[in-house]
Parts: sequence; structure tokens; C-alpha cells
Amino acid sequence: MKLAVIPGDGIGVEVTEAALTVLDAVVPGVDKTSYDLGARLYNRTGELLPDSVLAELRGQDAILLGAIGDPSVPSGVLERGLLLRLRFELDHYVNLRPTKLFPGVPTPLAGNPAIDFVVYREGTEGPYAGNGGVLRKNTKQEIATEVSVNTAFGVERVVRAAFDGAMKRKRKHLTLVHKNNVLVHAGDLWFRTVNEVAAEYPEVTLAYNHVDAATIYLVTDPGRYDVIVTDNLFGDILTDLAGAVAGGIGLAASGNVNPSRTTPSMFEPVHGSAPDIAGQQKADPTAAVLSVAMMLDHLGLTEEAARIERAVGEDLLSRSGPSPTMAIGERLAKAASS
Amino acid sequence: MKLAVIPGDGIGVEVTEAALTVLDAVVPGVDKTSYDLGARLYNRTGELLPDSVLAELRGQDAILLGAIGDPSVPSGVLERGLLLRLRFELDHYVNLRPTKLFPGVPTPLAGNPAIDFVVYREGTEGPYAGNGGVLRKNTKQEIATEVSVNTAFGVERVVRAAFDGAMKRKRKHLTLVHKNNVLVHAGDLWFRTVNEVAAEYPEVTLAYNHVDAATIYLVTDPGRYDVIVTDNLFGDILTDLAGAVAGGIGLAASGNVNPSRTTPSMFEPVHGSAPDIAGQQKADPTAAVLSVAMMLDHLGLTEEAARIERAVGEDLLSRSGPSPTMAIGERLAKAASS
Ligand SMILES: CC(C)[C@H](C(=O)O)[C@@H](O)C(=O)O
Ligand SMILES: CC(C)[C@H](C(=O)O)[C@@H](O)C(=O)O
Repeated sequence: MKLAVIPGDGIGVEVTEAALTVLDAVVPGVDKTSYDLGARLYNRTGELLPDSVLAELRGQDAILLGAIGDPSVPSGVLERGLLLRLRFELDHYVNLRPTKLFPGVPTPLAGNPAIDFVVYREGTEGPYAGNGGVLRKNTKQEIATEVSVNTAFGVERVVRAAFDGAMKRKRKHLTLVHKNNVLVHAGDLWFRTVNEVAAEYPEVTLAYNHVDAATIYLVTDPGRYDVIVTDNLFGDILTDLAGAVAGGIGLAASGNVNPSRTTPSMFEPVHGSAPDIAGQQKADPTAAVLSVAMMLDHLGLTEEAARIERAVGEDLLSRSGPSPTMAIGERLAKAASS
Repeated sequence: MKLAVIPGDGIGVEVTEAALTVLDAVVPGVDKTSYDLGARLYNRTGELLPDSVLAELRGQDAILLGAIGDPSVPSGVLERGLLLRLRFELDHYVNLRPTKLFPGVPTPLAGNPAIDFVVYREGTEGPYAGNGGVLRKNTKQEIATEVSVNTAFGVERVVRAAFDGAMKRKRKHLTLVHKNNVLVHAGDLWFRTVNEVAAEYPEVTLAYNHVDAATIYLVTDPGRYDVIVTDNLFGDILTDLAGAVAGGIGLAASGNVNPSRTTPSMFEPVHGSAPDIAGQQKADPTAAVLSVAMMLDHLGLTEEAARIERAVGEDLLSRSGPSPTMAIGERLAKAASS
């Protein structure tokens, strides 16, 4: 297995190191190449994602990414030029984000509800397309636009992936989240597509929620969700909230997946680079470790993935307070390898 | 005082009736004109907002709206053609949405945190502009776009209103919520505008949160917010979530305000028409009643507004279970008039 590692910025470096300790313990001998992309490279050379690096990345089986973003670089530069560029160039059209409240994990919600769903966030279009611009900048007449681009091609493939995902789950319940009463063109395309594809999946039950209502349900009744399919921006918002209600985004893993497997998929924690606590071994590497498990599952190493998930579950149940990043990594490595 | 009343659809009718009972008790003799707009009119005549009605509405001092939306009408038709059209035609550029956890009100959040902030949601542009369209509909090559339009003019005026609002509060803390690491053009305009206007308000402290992070804070640390300023869509999403964490959108009031007072402002509960429980006296009219209080406050009747708010606060503290919509209205009318 050939793995590209992009530790990135801030706590990305620490959590990736911890996650690799777990990987090494469970799957020894992975051929890893580390790429120093992110704020350090950009500040040194002005480069974000050199063509030669992108070409090399294409030849890997998977990519493990820590986190991207640093206060020394203007907001958006690293995100658009590196993280989103990778998602778009490698056509990661399914941004897969499971949310599960593990036993023993404190949630900000009263009553400790059961939470176990997965979000299929579209990853290659919508408001993230980078379409838009500015006219008459820095004048009283400035106009800035952002264009959400939604194609039948792009919507249908993530919707199909979500239905396939729903079929693998017990409840087989799919909810489309959009805002089709305001964003009528995009909303109509999403709504129609879900209903058309649904005809091929008679066992899957359907629901539709406006994105604003979905945020309500995520705090008052998260148990209603099984599989959610949604656009790039709504998925971004909902999965941060979902992570928070399920015990914190320190536990939320994600996969930027190209189900066609023509390019390497990329796995990363949902959290950001958290520059305020970087380098202090304060970050919880669990999300990065669970991202490794998602990666192994994607690569067909389901038994190894399950071992990591089990180790995480047991560890979360027995935690009594915070531990240093690497201590958690070593603990999980030991538990997952035995 | 000349008041236009648009009860609208679903529970809008019941909560408006209850809210008017409170208004009548606190400010007798208001000259009210009721407009039967919404699903009934549309299904009967195909009309959404006749020009003659819009002209009449312009001559009122304020508008009280119940809720808009009905399953008999395709999603978006009433919302865009009536509710949003009113907001846009009457230039309601500040969508003011206070969130307060009243004592005695159960919140879905563990630990019962203190919550008291107000969102200044832009109301006349952004992704709500209705710019966008569809190409090659119903083909494999369909493309649907939604354009978020942001102008220096539109952003600056709501940002100024938010700073003015912050100056009236104890903490004087303003948070801009956007997604400027992805929506770089609009995000840059918002960010620059907030920082420029801030120079005129040295007492106001500033923060910036990405919208995804803001949803996390709303459930883990809502006490950090005092005033939030944000775009139309992010404001829509955040205020539903805010309503939920502060005890439910059955309590969330809002004002579509034109601070220049050249047109009547419009007050409405944040909740929708809830067709599933319509006509059953199950809806909580508190949000509509608090919207009346916001309206009175806007019209300079601050003492009357305060009486309604006090009555609501006391009522919420003494509730032991649900009451019929009108019973709550009568209870609040009695308490607020004495
Ligand atoms: C860093 C940012 C560009 C990114 C996104 O918005 O997709 C992040 O929030 C995420 O969810 O992975
Ligand atoms: C009904 C809908 C168009 C409206 C909106 O999105 O603004 C509602 O959700 C609100 O928040 O007032």
C-alpha cells in the first residue's frame, strides 16, 4: 500500500503523527511518503500544490491529511489553493462524514440521545466551485458574487452513492437536506434527482428537510437521521454541528472519496488546524485515527479498520481526563494491534 | 397606528389571532387591516402579492405576519413570491432575530447555559437575491446555478445597524459570521466592511467565526455571542439553530426591519406554517406575541413592548405543560394589560 501523508498546519502535524502510530501498529510496512504542503511551504516559496507533487499524489493508493490553515496566511489561500484543489483535482465527489455518539462520550445535548448517521456531502461543486468574483473592489459600488454550480452529473453521482450507502445500513433511511424553497433552481435539481434515483431503491425510505430545520433536528432529535445527502456548503455546516453534538469535532473523521477509485481518496479529520493549541500535545488525535480506519475500510482492509474502531470505542469509554496527543496515539496503537 | 396583518398559512392564522389579542389588550384601538395572502389566495386566483395590495401595505405603519407555506403549493412559490418579495420590495435590510433563553424554559443543551444574543441577518441580498437559473433542464447535462449577490451598499448598511445595536448592549461584542476561507469574494467584502466600520465604534469588540464553527459554538458555548452580523442564508440557518438551543422556535421572534423607516417594517415568528399541526390550537403563539413586542418597540412604544416581554417571561416560568394557542394568548393579554 502506497500512502501519501500531508500533515499540514497547526495540530495537523501532531494528530497525523499519532494516527500513523496506530496505522503502523495495525498494518505494518505501509510505504509512506510525506509531503510538506501548507503554510510552511507557502511562506517559504509561495507554492501551494506544485504540479509535480499533484502528479505524485495521483500515483498513491490513498492520502492522509492532518489539517490546513494558518494565521500567517490570508484566509482562503491555503484552503482554496491546497485543500479544495486536492478535493477538486482528485474528483472527491463524496465527502463522507459519519457521526456517531460513542458510549461514554459526553455530548452537549441533554438526555444523551442516540446518534448514528452518516452525511454524504457533495465534494466537487456547489458554492465551493470557486465561481464568482468582484467588481469595483474597494468602492462604494463594490459587488461580490459567489456562484453555486450544480450539475445533474455531479448531483446524481453523490445521490447514488448515498443510496448505496443507505442500502448497507439497517434503517435504510435517506434525508435530502437543501433549501429548495429559496434556492429554487439548485433545490429543484437536487429534489428531482433524489426522487428519480429513489425509484431504483424501493427499500430506502425518504425524507426532505430544509437546512435550517435540519440544524434544529440535529439538537432536538438527531436520532431521526440515518443517511443525509446534501450539497457542499450545507454539508460543511451540518457536519460541524453534527460533530459537536456527538461529543466534539475532535472525534469526527471524514473521507474525501472518489468511489470510482480512479484517483486516491483522501482521509482527514473534520476539525481544523487549531493554531491556538498547536504544538502543545493538547489536540485529540481520535478524529485522525478514525480517519485512518475509514481509509483502511475504503482500501478493503475492513478487519483492520474494525480493530481501530473497537480500540477507539473502548478507549473513549475508559477516559477520565485529557491525555497528550501522542499518549492517546500510543494507547490506541497498543489496543488496536492486540 | 395603522397595522397590516397577514395571518398567512397553517399555524400562522392561529398564532396571529392570539398575538392580536395581546396587542389589543396592551394598545387598544389599533387600526388593523387583514390581508388574505398565502396559499388560499394563490390556489383560488394564482395571485401572490397583487400590486394594489403591495401599494396599500406601503401605507401602513407596520406589518404583522404569521407564517407562509403550504403543501398544496410547490416549495418556493409562496416563499419567493410573497414572503421574500415583501422583504425585498419593502427593503427590509435588517432581519433582526434576538435569541434569549428565558428562565424556566427547557433547552436541549445540557447544563442550561445562559443565552442572550441578537442576530443581524442581512435581508435583501446574498443567496436570496433570486439570481440564478437552470440550463438544459431535465437532461443529463442540466446545470443549476444560484448566485449570491453581495454589495458594498447592502453589506455596509446592515453592518452599521449591527454596530449600532451592539452599542446599545452591555457587552458591546460583535461577531461576524461568514465562510471567508471558501466564499472568498463575498467573505472579503463582509470582512473588510466590518473592519472599516469598526473604526467608528472603538468601544465594540470584534470576533470572526466561520459559519461551520459558529454552529459548534451555538451548542457548546452560546454565551460567547452578544451580537452576530451575517449574510441572509447563514443568518437563516443560525437563527433556526439559535431558536432551538434557546427552547424552541416556538419562542423565536423576528423583525424584518427597514431602519430608515421609509417603508413599514414587518414582524413575524421565525417558525414556519407547520401544516401538520395547523388548525388544532397546538401551536405556541409566544413567538408571534414576542414579534408584536418587537414591533411596538420599533414603533417607539417601548413601555408597552416591555410589558409584553415581562408577561411572556413570567408565563414561561409558570408553565407546567402545553396550553391551547388561544389560551396562551388570553393569558398573556391579561398579564400584559395589568
Ligand atoms: C477548511 C475548509 C475549507 C473546509 C471546508 O469548508 O470544506 C473545512 O471546514 C471542512 O469541513 O473540511
Ligand atoms: C420561509 C423561508 C423563505 C424563510 C427564509 O428562509 O428566510 C424562513 O426560513 C425564515 O427564516 O424566515
